[in-house]
Amino acid sequence: MPEVRVIEIHENIFADNERTAQQVRKYCSDNKTFFLNVMSAPGSGKTTMLVELINRLKDTCSIFEMDVDICSTLDAKRVADLTGVPSLQIHNGGLCHIDADMMQRALQQVDLSGIDLLILENIGNLVCPAEFDTGAMKNIMLLSVPEGHDKPLKYPLMFQVADLIVVNKIDTMAYFDFDVNQFKKNLQTVNPNAEVISISAKTGEGMEKLVRWVENEIQKVKK
Amino acid sequence: MPEVRVIEIHENIFADNERTAQQVRKYCSDNKTFFLNVMSAPGSGKTTMLVELINRLKDTCSIFEMDVDICSTLDAKRVADLTGVPSLQIHNGGLCHIDADMMQRALQQVDLSGIDLLILENIGNLVCPAEFDTGAMKNIMLLSVPEGHDKPLKYPLMFQVADLIVVNKIDTMAYFDFDVNQFKKNLQTVNPNAEVISISAKTGEGMEKLVRWVENEIQKVKK
Repeated sequence: MPEVRVIEIHENIFADNERTAQQVRKYCSDNKTFFLNVMSAPGSGKTTMLVELINRLKDTCSIFEMDVDICSTLDAKRVADLTGVPSLQIHNGGLCHIDADMMQRALQQVDLSGIDLLILENIGNLVCPAEFDTGAMKNIMLLSVPEGHDKPLKYPLMFQVADLIVVNKIDTMAYFDFDVNQFKKNLQTVNPNAEVISISAKTGEGMEKLVRWVENEIQKVKK
Repeated sequence: MPEVRVIEIHENIFADNERTAQQVRKYCSDNKTFFLNVMSAPGSGKTTMLVELINRLKDTCSIFEMDVDICSTLDAKRVADLTGVPSLQIHNGGLCHIDADMMQRALQQVDLSGIDLLILENIGNLVCPAEFDTGAMKNIMLLSVPEGHDKPLKYPLMFQVADLIVVNKIDTMAYFDFDVNQFKKNLQTVNPNAEVISISAKTGEGMEKLVRWVENEIQKVKK
């Protein structure tokens, strides 16, 4: 397993989040690094999905992963262990989100030159992370089938800031009352422009489509 | 369906949460009302569990339900529709939690005399609601099987403030890698005193045990 570093980064309440987010985006862009922010509720399968994604991409591109958590290092260790890519665990002092200033300080720990893809696994929360632009170029929002099709109506901002909605755990569709058509209608009311890719990170179904979406975004940044 | 009222309650940043929480608890205690706060991640099945709980209790005790959400009235309407008990939807202005001052203002809308059980369905979030004492006498934390057994380690404060952990969706145990023994070990490290009741709100398994727990707490307040 590659080394998993852990850093403590707490919020600076005087930071101008929007300006700092633009600086972070420019810094990644200057390094030709596609910065992807991945958000979801707790237990939606972010880490499992990222392990599967990274393992399908790591032979053709250089990846760095960052993981935000209150205090554990479980996810960063799991990603590093199961993929072999370097991972940085950010402990955010009990906060419910990470902002652009915290992200900028985390980036001081990483040499982005030669990194094609920087992934941030945000803290599991459908409310607060949506309110803070991290400086990512794209936001993925993961919704798992067991959570239900009503979530766009209940957490509208999260679904609005997402460029791509990944519906995970579709292998369990038969055991839950998840109505795909109703989900699409609900999503339409809050974000008609969002793309949707359905996957099972566990069985691999749909993963190739997600891989192509990420590869396409990496190529856009290289141009 | 009984009327579902909706109120907008935003945070007062000058409120002293701990003192106000004590006032709320005393007010409920004076009215012989057991105030129960129910927390979980989004999609854990709080509303389904509450509908099942209320339908098993409503013939023997008088119940009022409050639901916190960012902007929708889905949950309060569902509870009122499926149980017939009165429900109040609190819109918290996009916040990730409800605090004791907001709760105190919500209580101004309710006549507690004769109410045996006041249930607050908190916003779906494993971080922020744990930080704010609502004035409830007991906290239930719902964890669903699809979310995984590692959650006590990742969201320790939520599991620490909970008096009772309800493990929901146990009917789906065969489809997920939820290790019950590992979950209990994880919980032990953050809250060795928490009680655990396993249920499936969908099939009804375990619900009678939960009903007895709530009835017992209602009786304590009556004494």
